[in-house]
Amino acid sequence: MAQDNLSAVLHARGDLHVLIQMHSVGICGSDVHYWQHGQIGDFKVTKPMVLGHEAAGRVVKVGSAVRHLKVGDRVAIEPGVPRDMDEYFKTGQYNLSPTIFFCATPPDDGNLCRFYTHNANFCYKLPDNVTYEEGALIEPLSVGIHACRRAGVTLGSTVLICGSGPIGLVCLLVAKAMGASQVVITDLDPQRLSKAKELGADFELVVKKGDETKKLAERVEDMLGAQPHVAIECSGAESSIQTAIYATRPGGVVVLVGLGAEMVTLPLLNAAVREVDIRGVFRYRNTWPMAIAMLASGQVNVKSLVTHRFPLEQTGQAFETTRQGVGIKVMLKCDQNDQSP
Amino acid sequence: MAQDNLSAVLHARGDLHVLIQMHSVGICGSDVHYWQHGQIGDFKVTKPMVLGHEAAGRVVKVGSAVRHLKVGDRVAIEPGVPRDMDEYFKTGQYNLSPTIFFCATPPDDGNLCRFYTHNANFCYKLPDNVTYEEGALIEPLSVGIHACRRAGVTLGSTVLICGSGPIGLVCLLVAKAMGASQVVITDLDPQRLSKAKELGADFELVVKKGDETKKLAERVEDMLGAQPHVAIECSGAESSIQTAIYATRPGGVVVLVGLGAEMVTLPLLNAAVREVDIRGVFRYRNTWPMAIAMLASGQVNVKSLVTHRFPLEQTGQAFETTRQGVGIKVMLKCDQNDQSP
Amino acid sequence: MAQDNLSAVLHARGDLHVLIQMHSVGICGSDVHYWQHGQIGDFKVTKPMVLGHEAAGRVVKVGSAVRHLKVGDRVAIEPGVPRDMDEYFKTGQYNLSPTIFFCATPPDDGNLCRFYTHNANFCYKLPDNVTYEEGALIEPLSVGIHACRRAGVTLGSTVLICGSGPIGLVCLLVAKAMGASQVVITDLDPQRLSKAKELGADFELVVKKGDETKKLAERVEDMLGAQPHVAIECSGAESSIQTAIYATRPGGVVVLVGLGAEMVTLPLLNAAVREVDIRGVFRYRNTWPMAIAMLASGQVNVKSLVTHRFPLEQTGQAFETTRQGVGIKVMLKCDQNDQSP
Amino acid sequence: MAQDNLSAVLHARGDLHVLIQMHSVGICGSDVHYWQHGQIGDFKVTKPMVLGHEAAGRVVKVGSAVRHLKVGDRVAIEPGVPRDMDEYFKTGQYNLSPTIFFCATPPDDGNLCRFYTHNANFCYKLPDNVTYEEGALIEPLSVGIHACRRAGVTLGSTVLICGSGPIGLVCLLVAKAMGASQVVITDLDPQRLSKAKELGADFELVVKKGDETKKLAERVEDMLGAQPHVAIECSGAESSIQTAIYATRPGGVVVLVGLGAEMVTLPLLNAAVREVDIRGVFRYRNTWPMAIAMLASGQVNVKSLVTHRFPLEQTGQAFETTRQGVGIKVMLKCDQNDQSP
Repeated sequence: MAQDNLSAVLHARGDLHVLIQMHSVGICGSDVHYWQHGQIGDFKVTKPMVLGHEAAGRVVKVGSAVRHLKVGDRVAIEPGVPRDMDEYFKTGQYNLSPTIFFCATPPDDGNLCRFYTHNANFCYKLPDNVTYEEGALIEPLSVGIHACRRAGVTLGSTVLICGSGPIGLVCLLVAKAMGASQVVITDLDPQRLSKAKELGADFELVVKKGDETKKLAERVEDMLGAQPHVAIECSGAESSIQTAIYATRPGGVVVLVGLGAEMVTLPLLNAAVREVDIRGVFRYRNTWPMAIAMLASGQVNVKSLVTHRFPLEQTGQAFETTRQGVGIKVMLKCDQNDQSP
Repeated sequence: MAQDNLSAVLHARGDLHVLIQMHSVGICGSDVHYWQHGQIGDFKVTKPMVLGHEAAGRVVKVGSAVRHLKVGDRVAIEPGVPRDMDEYFKTGQYNLSPTIFFCATPPDDGNLCRFYTHNANFCYKLPDNVTYEEGALIEPLSVGIHACRRAGVTLGSTVLICGSGPIGLVCLLVAKAMGASQVVITDLDPQRLSKAKELGADFELVVKKGDETKKLAERVEDMLGAQPHVAIECSGAESSIQTAIYATRPGGVVVLVGLGAEMVTLPLLNAAVREVDIRGVFRYRNTWPMAIAMLASGQVNVKSLVTHRFPLEQTGQAFETTRQGVGIKVMLKCDQNDQSP
Repeated sequence: MAQDNLSAVLHARGDLHVLIQMHSVGICGSDVHYWQHGQIGDFKVTKPMVLGHEAAGRVVKVGSAVRHLKVGDRVAIEPGVPRDMDEYFKTGQYNLSPTIFFCATPPDDGNLCRFYTHNANFCYKLPDNVTYEEGALIEPLSVGIHACRRAGVTLGSTVLICGSGPIGLVCLLVAKAMGASQVVITDLDPQRLSKAKELGADFELVVKKGDETKKLAERVEDMLGAQPHVAIECSGAESSIQTAIYATRPGGVVVLVGLGAEMVTLPLLNAAVREVDIRGVFRYRNTWPMAIAMLASGQVNVKSLVTHRFPLEQTGQAFETTRQGVGIKVMLKCDQNDQSP
Repeated sequence: MAQDNLSAVLHARGDLHVLIQMHSVGICGSDVHYWQHGQIGDFKVTKPMVLGHEAAGRVVKVGSAVRHLKVGDRVAIEPGVPRDMDEYFKTGQYNLSPTIFFCATPPDDGNLCRFYTHNANFCYKLPDNVTYEEGALIEPLSVGIHACRRAGVTLGSTVLICGSGPIGLVCLLVAKAMGASQVVITDLDPQRLSKAKELGADFELVVKKGDETKKLAERVEDMLGAQPHVAIECSGAESSIQTAIYATRPGGVVVLVGLGAEMVTLPLLNAAVREVDIRGVFRYRNTWPMAIAMLASGQVNVKSLVTHRFPLEQTGQAFETTRQGVGIKVMLKCDQNDQSP
């Protein structure tokens, strides 16, 4: 790995960093994917790699240049840290920087471990009334924030969310917190939809493989009384993206959160002549401060997303639980002396 | 009044209009002002004028060209109806159209009466679970929506609201519904602040005439732990606008809702070098649909704003109550057979 | 055709309208398509229909409610006139209004004729130094303006334009006028590219059927020294849309101007993870005033786009010329006493 | 000066930096002000400080971590370098970062010297067809770019520029390059207006002290045939800011570039009810790449702004020339072996 650039300098210097005793780390679908398949798209695991990027812990050491954190601070960790002060970073789009460091994306190690060092500028102090697990959940919550922000969700928006897994659910929570008036959420699994209902979805729509996409779009319109302003696609399935396009109101937005096949066939003409924009999201940027503000003020409640907890020693079992799709979010507890939420 | 233009045509034609049996009409400060002073700025009452523009009622007759309403529909009335298809209307900024019709702004009559005719395109059907009074309150709520929208309030925003009268309170409700994490609200009157607290304000700040504006700004920063992203000025007082500027974070926005003196002295250099934008709001545009969506979904609760009700026969007493600043919102009940909320 | 709505009323009333003696009407590809195939997508010609929607003429009669035009004024005609004061019109997106009147889109008649009546609010007075033909060319120019605006072209933007037909050329002119620093333009036909070069293109790229899309994207990057900020796709060809996506910089925008097949296969994953937005354009909105301003100030020169002129009597020959793809823009001259540009 | 933070680390490390042999440095009004008064606002010169921040030179040494520059590269220098990876930097608003390093703003030294070290990420390679002096002029040009961008200047915009000094002139050039159709420019001095005319202004308006602001606003409207969309105030004078507000179209923007008195009296009611936004600009951000693109493509021509040149040995005379307001831009030539533009 080349070290002769800013990123290397920024990342390698101890004095900008903090050493963190890890407390809670959530397991993400991508962690399981790397474990099972060793690869996501062009990112290949070619040597041992530490997993984990939904994380919170306690600062145990601070670099000499760190001003805003001190030993003992409880922090949430933003896993992406730009390495280069390039055009993306300078314009506030650092998530798009091609050389960004990112926990548990090869070749960069993650933070599912006992102690971990991170750039202090991407560690955010948690208020007393926000738990470590809430801190760890800021990572998936950030996906929802960035998706809803890219979608332009605002007061009175009506929203279709395709897919009721962990990411669909955080999109639901964020959309409501941003003022969405009504949310329709879909899934193949009625069980997952009942969780969505519990978290505030206004309408649940069970879809089946082979359902006609235009028909599904009509059912969404019937439920809401009008086409939704926004669709947030979290499944990555081609048919679901098609449904999202057909369902969305002229002038609206389809946001692609779920990642699917390399090539996808779409009703592009339908989208184009109705000026329905298609926008991808790549991770997130500038979300931790607002997420902490929302958690501290109680306006978003993510606690119930955690359905399973395992001590770090039982990581294998924890990953197996996630792989089987049981529950919503599995948390690994990395601090042997403090296994509290 | 010139009739040889589109506005006249649009407004005079019965077939685009609906006849409404008025049910509930709120009294606004501007109504009282016209009553007492006969003039606001350049708008002068030069002949008898019907007051009232916060209104809801029931459709009793529909013009031949009206498609989306039918007799018996309960509707909220948007009081401004553009007369000309000018550049403002075409670009979605119809509130800025210089020739707009507006209820109870001279020389246009308002709707504080038994029966009233309005352009059907600016009458919005209320769902069954939204009361007439909530429908009437959409008008002040719209001021809050437009102000928060112009301010860019979003998830995690911290907000300073100057003034805790009816408009300050609706701004508070809307800011929270849009995802604001913390709101500081100010007023001279501790009574009014306790109502704000009840409606969700996180911090209340009692101000006194003569308080140093920079000191007040510092107290706001102390309360929030950082300068607010946004200040919404609802008092119109020069010192309060100054406080709003000093208090706001670099890159933030001060929105002027309260209208004060023609000429105001401001710390403009302070605002400019910190890129704190100063934005006025003139009424509102495109707010009724989202307001109805929010009321129907229960995400904004305005019912408790109504503190007094009078039958139309007691209009004088109702205006006197408003003039004295007692309570928050006074409602006039125009339907003798139905005085329900 | 239902007349019991606002649109009917607005459109049918003489007093909001002007009678225009047509002067110059350009032939658009869609005109030829209706002539040859009787249908574009869901729009079918089921009875005789007047073609033509790129038009300018002279006012010979004004409705009683018209204030901004008088007999003798030379005007450019915006062919789309909203019929309903719906949510799209109120928010300034009237091009998306599903009930909009549009010249020469069935069942609405166009203006390729001697005399034509149009809503005066969508007729724009031409300054003395703007010719009728320039006035007629505002219609295709508007497609370019709307496309570049949706693309966010601004000072220093680098732009890829796919397709060097009339629409590609106007996009080129507009992109440059908005401050684009470098434009690459592609086409199958080297002849058309040489016209693009003449009009200001910085780089021309001849493409061949079967060229590998990723390779083409690399060639664009090589020409510019970096990926373009924006791609404006004017061909509608699947491979060209794919090239546009691969070529565009992370965080950039692909605008779809050319309309192709109903279903299109795209490298959606590539677009999504790089946050390359895909935005359609449907006609245009609010473009005539700025187009006139640009023509009057001489900052956009469209005159050389007109390569053929025919008197109205030779319409068949004019259409045949357009069908054969000879030249760029064919103009029909509708005023027997004035065949000047 | 505290060194225990990121900024210090970033700025002090040689390996992120380049050593530059200075070639051309322009003199700015602020340089003269520090020279004459030792202070601008809260920024006080308390020890010897090198002046100069409009600069270009040649790289003679590169730090080990620098990848995009090599010895011999000709570069333009962006004088502001953020020291902290704070919320402003992360969101692309680094100019608002309170701890930013800035050349020749006390206590930070400028680059009016023979050799100078700067963060390589804020040095931009000049193409062969852009001269050193053009490179140095990117700094004032950036003020114009940021102002026009904040103003929302776009295709067909009409613009009022108050003040025809160097900054007013670059605003003029940039506004035209962004597509402004017509620009009115004002000044007390007819001489300066004739330079503006030469550079492309459409209308020049000589103002006199004591002119009534509303009258001036009317004259602007008369010249353009309508109120301008945008006013860019470059004088800082209270009366001129008032004129800018009165003159601007409803829904328009007044941008404050000129910095004047701490407290300014404004017709705020007039601005607020017409939703004329008041926006300050503080320096600029993310402007160098687009400025270089524009200079390289020839779409902006700044060469004629340079009216005087002095070798570095005659700095005193150069400053005296600027102080007297003679000409437009005075350049100091720092390389004894190359005094070319």
